[in-house]
Amino acid sequence: MNQKNILLGHGSGGHLTHELIESIFLKHFDNPILNLLSDAALLPTAKGKIAFTTDSFVVDPLFFPGGDIGKLAIAGTVNDLAVQGARPAFLSAGFILEEGLSMETLENIVQSMAKEASKAGIQIVTGDTKVVERGKCDKIFINTAGIGLFDEEFSAIGIDLIKTGDKILINGSIGDHGMAVMSARNQLNISTKVESDCASLNGLIDSLSDFKSKIRFMRDATRGGLATVSAELCKHQNFGVRLFEDKIPVNEGVRGICELLGFDPLYVANEGKVVMVVANDVSDQMLQVMKNHPLGKDAAIIGEITSGQEGKCFMETQIGGNRVVDMLAGEQLPRIC
Amino acid sequence: MNQKNILLGHGSGGHLTHELIESIFLKHFDNPILNLLSDAALLPTAKGKIAFTTDSFVVDPLFFPGGDIGKLAIAGTVNDLAVQGARPAFLSAGFILEEGLSMETLENIVQSMAKEASKAGIQIVTGDTKVVERGKCDKIFINTAGIGLFDEEFSAIGIDLIKTGDKILINGSIGDHGMAVMSARNQLNISTKVESDCASLNGLIDSLSDFKSKIRFMRDATRGGLATVSAELCKHQNFGVRLFEDKIPVNEGVRGICELLGFDPLYVANEGKVVMVVANDVSDQMLQVMKNHPLGKDAAIIGEITSGQEGKCFMETQIGGNRVVDMLAGEQLPRIC
Repeated sequence: MNQKNILLGHGSGGHLTHELIESIFLKHFDNPILNLLSDAALLPTAKGKIAFTTDSFVVDPLFFPGGDIGKLAIAGTVNDLAVQGARPAFLSAGFILEEGLSMETLENIVQSMAKEASKAGIQIVTGDTKVVERGKCDKIFINTAGIGLFDEEFSAIGIDLIKTGDKILINGSIGDHGMAVMSARNQLNISTKVESDCASLNGLIDSLSDFKSKIRFMRDATRGGLATVSAELCKHQNFGVRLFEDKIPVNEGVRGICELLGFDPLYVANEGKVVMVVANDVSDQMLQVMKNHPLGKDAAIIGEITSGQEGKCFMETQIGGNRVVDMLAGEQLPRIC
Repeated sequence: MNQKNILLGHGSGGHLTHELIESIFLKHFDNPILNLLSDAALLPTAKGKIAFTTDSFVVDPLFFPGGDIGKLAIAGTVNDLAVQGARPAFLSAGFILEEGLSMETLENIVQSMAKEASKAGIQIVTGDTKVVERGKCDKIFINTAGIGLFDEEFSAIGIDLIKTGDKILINGSIGDHGMAVMSARNQLNISTKVESDCASLNGLIDSLSDFKSKIRFMRDATRGGLATVSAELCKHQNFGVRLFEDKIPVNEGVRGICELLGFDPLYVANEGKVVMVVANDVSDQMLQVMKNHPLGKDAAIIGEITSGQEGKCFMETQIGGNRVVDMLAGEQLPRIC
């Protein structure tokens, strides 16, 4: 690149846009479909269903312990596809850049996207870049939309399959992402290391494919945290959810920052945690398989589906009480993803 | 809605996000796939290929003569699919909202999106909303990604099919969108009415389906204008492009503002113009069919593919000269779409 910083002209659609595409985007995202630079990418599909999702990423700061906006933009969309039981296959990437953004920062982010995409086995096949004047966005916003394929016949996953007695599994500790971003944003000087759990979960979910017919429902617990997923899960349903506080893994560092700043880890965002509702009879086996995966070392059975208190989520607290768990009401942590 | 303005909490993933989704997005985008609000939408597809594209929209101002950011966000992505010969079928919508944006403005934009989507016959099936603090974006940015299907066997369109003697068609006047936005932005007091040509072109392209095998290549002439499309078309190819200045339709009002402000209409963005390269033997017939469509009244054959001057685009000027037409170099009009 001849320029060290993003100019308005990089969003013009002309020479500078082409230069940016070739020297940064194609360099790192390089694949035969994207390289054609057609108005729309042509993708091979099988007959049947495909999964389609989108997410925009506005996280502040751009880099935080355990990840950055680029890694997040890939993993977030990969996870939305994977929790639908799809194999994440194709991604689009839409960039909104602030005039003056350093080319080095952009390239670091793009490199991180390429690395995570390769890890997750997904291809970035189409994209778009806009540039806005200084002060009209915050350095960089990224949108990714994703397409997932179903290699075998479509296996049903859905809230309507959930039965009383089903168990609730999570693949590890909660609150890591939110508290990692929070500590980076506020430059908290904390001795315990807190790292974002930001990761693509399709590999972990794949490792449970032997139990496919026993998975009723999956969702990644991002904004609003485990609490919001659990409350949403049973909202308007003819069953309730019971969580066990003492079973929910929370890292020491996260617990510390939460206490310090007055957050409840139950509501703090995760970016590498899947909540699964699975049949009771295989829940222990599934937990073992999860624990054998690098992203599931601290997996735990944290709750169950109940027949009482329909539509409500309760948590048995460590001191033996019962607490209603509702969705997040206001906003704890803006721009966490 | 209880709130008159967007709060940070509307991006939290909790109660306020749900309220926003239900009272604005579902209200207007209502369809069975979107209404499920799953992490990823499940879409029916046929075996074969699909087309996939994305665009972010940051136009300033949000409303301009002939359109608004919502209409643009639908038509822009619909057109990217249509020029690949695909039938636009499914859209995602990703919103980045500035804290304090009025709910009324948001709803007007969403309504406009719904109207244009319905006109184009495309469904919005999945979405995402983020909210950033006041001053960290400019009211609203919208990303749409789109999936197009091929109802019949995939019909090839591509630069490699272009032959010497092929004709270049456009469905009407150039520069309208750019100058409409420009006049709205600067509140120019101009007597001649200039309106954006912002429109979904899939209907117009469909009307030419009898000539499918005769269409070599299509592209919508957006950022960078007709000049950039024409220059891109022959870049690195073994043919050249010749444009005829006196054949290129330019509305009086657009010509006036261009002269006033020093713009070249050839480089000004369009949002409802497709440039088609078609076989010479049917070009007149195709022109007639185009002219019968409401979006093609002012269609014209504006150029041809030449064997000389490979890789270059020339324009025969009205005074009989020859001018090289290159891609847009800098940035004429930031945030035109």
